[in-house]
Amino acid sequence: MILTSKNNPLIKETAALKDKKGRKEHGLFLVEGRKMLAECQKSDFVIERIFLSESYSGELPQSNAETVRVSDDVFRFLSDEKTPQGALCRVRIPTRGLQAPQGKCLLLDGVSDPGNVGAIVRTANAAGYREIYLTETCADPYSPKSVRASMSGLFFTKLYFGTRQDIFSALDGTPIIAADMGGENAFSFQSPETFALAIGNEANGISAETFERAQYTVKIPMRETQESLNAAVSAGILMYLLNRTEFEK
Amino acid sequence: MILTSKNNPLIKETAALKDKKGRKEHGLFLVEGRKMLAECQKSDFVIERIFLSESYSGELPQSNAETVRVSDDVFRFLSDEKTPQGALCRVRIPTRGLQAPQGKCLLLDGVSDPGNVGAIVRTANAAGYREIYLTETCADPYSPKSVRASMSGLFFTKLYFGTRQDIFSALDGTPIIAADMGGENAFSFQSPETFALAIGNEANGISAETFERAQYTVKIPMRETQESLNAAVSAGILMYLLNRTEFEK
Repeated sequence: MILTSKNNPLIKETAALKDKKGRKEHGLFLVEGRKMLAECQKSDFVIERIFLSESYSGELPQSNAETVRVSDDVFRFLSDEKTPQGALCRVRIPTRGLQAPQGKCLLLDGVSDPGNVGAIVRTANAAGYREIYLTETCADPYSPKSVRASMSGLFFTKLYFGTRQDIFSALDGTPIIAADMGGENAFSFQSPETFALAIGNEANGISAETFERAQYTVKIPMRETQESLNAAVSAGILMYLLNRTEFEK
Repeated sequence: MILTSKNNPLIKETAALKDKKGRKEHGLFLVEGRKMLAECQKSDFVIERIFLSESYSGELPQSNAETVRVSDDVFRFLSDEKTPQGALCRVRIPTRGLQAPQGKCLLLDGVSDPGNVGAIVRTANAAGYREIYLTETCADPYSPKSVRASMSGLFFTKLYFGTRQDIFSALDGTPIIAADMGGENAFSFQSPETFALAIGNEANGISAETFERAQYTVKIPMRETQESLNAAVSAGILMYLLNRTEFEK
């Protein structure tokens, strides 16, 4: 059977997952594209349902999840891509209470661009930062745009959400290193064994509360004609520099 | 006098600069926002004309360029921003023939996302890569989206355009270091004094021609669950790592 109506309750519910309200209500988010779906299957994430377009002719995903065929028109309605590949799935949002980190971790302090949040999650997974704490002022990492930018990094990191105070409590005993233009040169800075690297908002930087709580501040040195870097770029440079003893081996 | 018609020839010509065709025809591009305009004024770039919206109430730019007031409606027509600030200008695109680099430089080999091109230009200026060579397959760095993402880095770097072969000729004698997942660990790689760091296309990486021509390849080491990084993020990490002797001082 092929679902052809946008008014079908399952289709309406699935389309609602493109918005934060719908994701919160159903505890699900969307993962789109054959490759992302395959990466998701390798992870601990639970795929709840798979949608394939009528004209999808790629390999069929091996999964216990129910697979639903929909018309190309309905697929476009569910998709967030300009040129949909014809495969997407609904995935459960993990629920976990705030916990202390196991190793080097990241604190996103109001990073508001969904593309930046996704790119940071992608780099965090690559650079060995497995826990990411996000303040409530961050863009939602489960939005279609963030998920796409995270390129499967989302499936292999642990995200924690909370107010700044809740996050500070979970990080009790873990030094915070704030990325700030007034900080120490990151190239000469000697990182402690474990820490939380804090990345601030694109326009306003680190919040006053996080700045107050931070034990260290580090900067990326720059030519004087450039004031700042893109948030995802500076997060990437700092994650690698502060973990360099791991990579120089 | 306040221009209120979108059919005014000056307004039509200016709006056409949002597209590559219009920029090529007139040799001009658009710079938007008070801060970007101020940065542009500090550089060698020539501001040809300034446009302020009727309701613009910020500081008036000090400039010899003619200033034109336009209705808010016409300003929105010229603007590429969701919430226009009311100030933009037309700037001359520098014309320069391909030349050899003076120091460490960048080769963008088919970077196709305008946001990535802009963010890379921004980081290049910060990290001391003053010359950027772009193949014809790259996104146009003078598009409104790229200019915005470059955050004034565009005004303090030199951009060169050409076919790969023309660029290779200009780089004759300069070793090319290609960013590639099969390369040497960038953390242990010893860079030559001068070089061109090549960054490939988001989906396909370095082209066969550039790969063939490159003397070295370097990679950013990654956890095995992550295959790749965002192009602007990896360019940023590599630019800083390969120039680290400069920053460790």
